[in-house]
Amino acid sequence: MSALPRPIINELRAVVGDTWVVVEEKAIERYLYDETAYGVRPQPIKDVIVVKPGSTEEVAEVLRIANKYKVPVYVRGGGTGLVGGAIPIKPGIVMSLERMDKVIIDSENMVAEVEAGASFGKLLEEADKHNLMFPAHPGDEGASVGGLIACNAGGSRAVKTGVVRSYVLGLEVVLPSGEVLKLGAKTIKNNFGYNLAHLFIGSEGILGVITRAYLRLYPKWGYTATVIIPFDSRVKAFRAAKKLLFSGFIPLALEYFDRRVIETSAKYLGLQWPIKEGDYFLMIMLAEALEDTLFLELEYLDRVAREEESLEPFATQRDDEQKTLLKIRSEIFSSLKSETFDILDTTVPLGNVDRFIENIIDVEKRYGIWLPVYGHVGDGNVHVHVLNYQGFSRDQLEKITEEVYNAALMLGGVITGEHGIGYIRRKYVKRLLGDTWIETMRKLKAVLDPNNVLNPGKVLPEE
Amino acid sequence: MSALPRPIINELRAVVGDTWVVVEEKAIERYLYDETAYGVRPQPIKDVIVVKPGSTEEVAEVLRIANKYKVPVYVRGGGTGLVGGAIPIKPGIVMSLERMDKVIIDSENMVAEVEAGASFGKLLEEADKHNLMFPAHPGDEGASVGGLIACNAGGSRAVKTGVVRSYVLGLEVVLPSGEVLKLGAKTIKNNFGYNLAHLFIGSEGILGVITRAYLRLYPKWGYTATVIIPFDSRVKAFRAAKKLLFSGFIPLALEYFDRRVIETSAKYLGLQWPIKEGDYFLMIMLAEALEDTLFLELEYLDRVAREEESLEPFATQRDDEQKTLLKIRSEIFSSLKSETFDILDTTVPLGNVDRFIENIIDVEKRYGIWLPVYGHVGDGNVHVHVLNYQGFSRDQLEKITEEVYNAALMLGGVITGEHGIGYIRRKYVKRLLGDTWIETMRKLKAVLDPNNVLNPGKVLPEE
Repeated sequence: MSALPRPIINELRAVVGDTWVVVEEKAIERYLYDETAYGVRPQPIKDVIVVKPGSTEEVAEVLRIANKYKVPVYVRGGGTGLVGGAIPIKPGIVMSLERMDKVIIDSENMVAEVEAGASFGKLLEEADKHNLMFPAHPGDEGASVGGLIACNAGGSRAVKTGVVRSYVLGLEVVLPSGEVLKLGAKTIKNNFGYNLAHLFIGSEGILGVITRAYLRLYPKWGYTATVIIPFDSRVKAFRAAKKLLFSGFIPLALEYFDRRVIETSAKYLGLQWPIKEGDYFLMIMLAEALEDTLFLELEYLDRVAREEESLEPFATQRDDEQKTLLKIRSEIFSSLKSETFDILDTTVPLGNVDRFIENIIDVEKRYGIWLPVYGHVGDGNVHVHVLNYQGFSRDQLEKITEEVYNAALMLGGVITGEHGIGYIRRKYVKRLLGDTWIETMRKLKAVLDPNNVLNPGKVLPEE
Repeated sequence: MSALPRPIINELRAVVGDTWVVVEEKAIERYLYDETAYGVRPQPIKDVIVVKPGSTEEVAEVLRIANKYKVPVYVRGGGTGLVGGAIPIKPGIVMSLERMDKVIIDSENMVAEVEAGASFGKLLEEADKHNLMFPAHPGDEGASVGGLIACNAGGSRAVKTGVVRSYVLGLEVVLPSGEVLKLGAKTIKNNFGYNLAHLFIGSEGILGVITRAYLRLYPKWGYTATVIIPFDSRVKAFRAAKKLLFSGFIPLALEYFDRRVIETSAKYLGLQWPIKEGDYFLMIMLAEALEDTLFLELEYLDRVAREEESLEPFATQRDDEQKTLLKIRSEIFSSLKSETFDILDTTVPLGNVDRFIENIIDVEKRYGIWLPVYGHVGDGNVHVHVLNYQGFSRDQLEKITEEVYNAALMLGGVITGEHGIGYIRRKYVKRLLGDTWIETMRKLKAVLDPNNVLNPGKVLPEE
């Protein structure tokens, strides 16, 4: 027996058409979860109606109906979030934007006009056809562009040109009231009332529904290389990373992982990790407009590697080899997922990345566990997996999570650099963000969404 | 006879101390104006009390008093704004943050901890002492850091690493209620409730008072060069600029100006513009961590220049020469100011910079006037001066302004890329931003500043 008001289904059908309102349990199943690790993800509510609007106007109508009945709306993109942000936890509407997936490349101005439901992969592909690129790479290419923006996604290739926020030139947002905000233009600079767009970027779907965006593209940097620098100690690897960052050298990506982690991923993919020496690796991705610049950077990396006592570095400019290396790096999360309690997203100030790792090693020793560590050392954003260790209770796993968080917090860091708060990190909000922050956020939420229909139970703590 | 409530002076004195409350007409004079061109700047109200708080707590107390009496507060930094944002237009308090000018460089993490009243010049100087840099350069070094953030300043060196928004890692903001928001951390990535900071960045002082910030610094790129490429036609210069931008080459700055403009500035400074050939110039600033990379870029620029039929390029790596060139470029505005009706801040999509220039030439021809044009062609942000042409009425000058705006708008541009709305561009808000945008902004303003004490009469149109 559904807790939802009876007439709502027919009203939704009248807006989007019968085909695009889904209520059958089996068909709904795949709209109930995201990529949040099993250990921490919330139990979804199955008493939901899945609605698939085909236009901004339909999104607006659905929100008007939701407001009329005061029914929650959980907006869904690619379902690749890691903090339960898209999981319905109260009876309501799951609004999937999958039909709104147009990507238009304005190559003349190097801008992509993208509907929110378009996949990140489609954006990359379409840009590539025009010899343009979207430099950031927040992992899973199944993510939707709307989701990337709503969550201000980051990823590995944010060192040179920034996280998703830096690419958003314009935004169309449907407010919970059904009104449509059109913000920004196709210009790189814009101070004509632009700040509103930035309120929605990273607000994790609690203030409005992003339906369309102008994204800045770059000319494809034709010359690329991937370099793997192996080390025989974790401390040496991090020292080298710091040296590179503090030298003013700006790669596209600067990643860290160890042999155990990367071989787990390679094995999961049925591939071989090609570097035989060393147990700790820096992976540097380079992309340049001039080939000679790339060569200079390769030489420079080689020099620094040797100064920092690396083992033999491996460099390749071959596309297929680079893709394989990135693939193995990108699938670390998937390869560990089945045994993962939670994937953490701690981020520390740049100068503290090496100290952070030492603290993690200390936690490992004290608990006698393996904490897989990898990530975006180039911006201080290091992922730590807490696994389902045998013989450990849920409380103990949460205690270990706290220890990792504290390791970051003590060094002036934050508990999430890119994944966001969503559902699972809400419990830390009261402790870590001041009352004034929470009160201000609540006030803004109440003004924009007076009936609290958008993603209720997420981001803000319970009152 | 003051319109301000009598007891307010004593209450303000009790908060900040007698020395820091100024009421004498002569002493107040220099707090009444900013750099807005004479033709368009509003007449300041002289019935104001200048208050100079020395701490965040004092800022909060001043705002509490202002709220108690419902008295306007005009927050003031360096007074370098160009749109009347800091000019008091109702009887009230001018709050100058000049005493809050500490700059602490955390070189370990490459972060500057800056009080809002510190000058931009001081930030540069202190960073330099630690071999670090703040790459953006929004013109006048007398600007305050708080002002740069409140107005999301841009400037010439935004091509490589972005406008001021991209550098703000954390923010302390005093809300009109006197509550203090502490947002962000010293990390490059942060998705733990960060979006609030971005609401205040670029809000031009109408939502809260920025008192302190964490700013991202970069290692000083040790190898720099400035290249001037002269052309015999404006069209060729813009075609070359577009070619560079679309090649994926990313300089620190890519500027345009013509001989008449640059010689006006050189003469104003008592200097000589050293390039004898050509009437139209691109100025490219390069900064790299590796000297050989710089050489490659210089070679590349030379090649493109010749392909695009430039005259003989001039390149220098000498510090003194580079400083002189930048000085002459930076003082264009000052050198024209006495004859300027208004300096415009039009910005167009990158692919349209050349068409925009053609439209400007067309306006010049139709009115038989000179429109000095220069600026940040590297991000589409081109400044146009409307001068006090002899025999032209105020209405005609405003008509010319409209024509320049229309030239940008028709090409998908905006009327301000970096200077903001302030007072003088408010009249365009209703026409150019939708009702929903204005209503949403009003609602947010009403929640944060229910008595409308912060910078009333700015940014938002009159109701």
